[in-house]
Amino acid sequence: MEFLTQEDKDLYYMGLALREAQKAFEEDEVPVGAILVQDNRVIAKGHNQVEMLQDATAHAEMLALTSAFSYFNSWRIPNLELYCTLEPCTMCAGAIIASRVKRLVYAAPDIRLGACGSFVDLMSEKHPMHQVEIHGGVLEEESAFLLKTFFQQKRAKCPQKNS
Amino acid sequence: MEFLTQEDKDLYYMGLALREAQKAFEEDEVPVGAILVQDNRVIAKGHNQVEMLQDATAHAEMLALTSAFSYFNSWRIPNLELYCTLEPCTMCAGAIIASRVKRLVYAAPDIRLGACGSFVDLMSEKHPMHQVEIHGGVLEEESAFLLKTFFQQKRAKCPQKNS
Repeated sequence: MEFLTQEDKDLYYMGLALREAQKAFEEDEVPVGAILVQDNRVIAKGHNQVEMLQDATAHAEMLALTSAFSYFNSWRIPNLELYCTLEPCTMCAGAIIASRVKRLVYAAPDIRLGACGSFVDLMSEKHPMHQVEIHGGVLEEESAFLLKTFFQQKRAKCPQKNS
Repeated sequence: MEFLTQEDKDLYYMGLALREAQKAFEEDEVPVGAILVQDNRVIAKGHNQVEMLQDATAHAEMLALTSAFSYFNSWRIPNLELYCTLEPCTMCAGAIIASRVKRLVYAAPDIRLGACGSFVDLMSEKHPMHQVEIHGGVLEEESAFLLKTFFQQKRAKCPQKNS
């Protein structure tokens, strides 16, 4: 797959990440998806599976990263771009830095838990080992709509339950 | 196992976490160990296996947490104490918060990457979902000695290699 501009490329791969988020939605999971790309090739995909796996670390980004570690048989994946439909939390941001991901593109901000400026801003801290390029807001409305719909439906089903 | 004081309890379980760190040392991994305790019972153990598994997320804390999720078949583990020989990084701190761990006890600070006040201080941020009790410095010298010895030996073997 070739693209004329970086913007075209970002829109295309964020579209794939949104399809992953839709899978999570259909499985009654918080709808977040992630895609890892090397050059113009998808290396790994992931969607949130916290409830299905009963694993608090099974965020979309973490599952995509661990797939990529297996694919390359390496915990360093320095030439990859990660497309994620939601601003990563501190856990995922830490894993993205630790694995030397080159560039992170996300769609919607996570105003409660996001680690790229919403809850905290880990990516702007001068990290001793690695800095990640960041670009937010690609297909933001589409991702935010999916999340909003999910939580509205959850609240309608279980009005008194808090997570 | 019963203890007269919290200090005695912390020393005992940090001793077990150091045994986990020693396992990592023997496997040529950065020597960090973790133990998860409920009341006075060990629920899960972990030691750093990043190199063996070629997985940047395979930190001691993450492996202990995922064992505990399996044990309880739940991603929420709210009544547990985590003993770790090194101040957790941002990834592990995020996972500790996400899984609702009650209390974190650590040994040595990680001045480059620690997320409890060294690199950043995630635990003092008012988190929207959960606050973790923190206690640092238990068996700090023992843990720091093990780490220092590991890195000295690494540098002696590979003087020009940077991680």
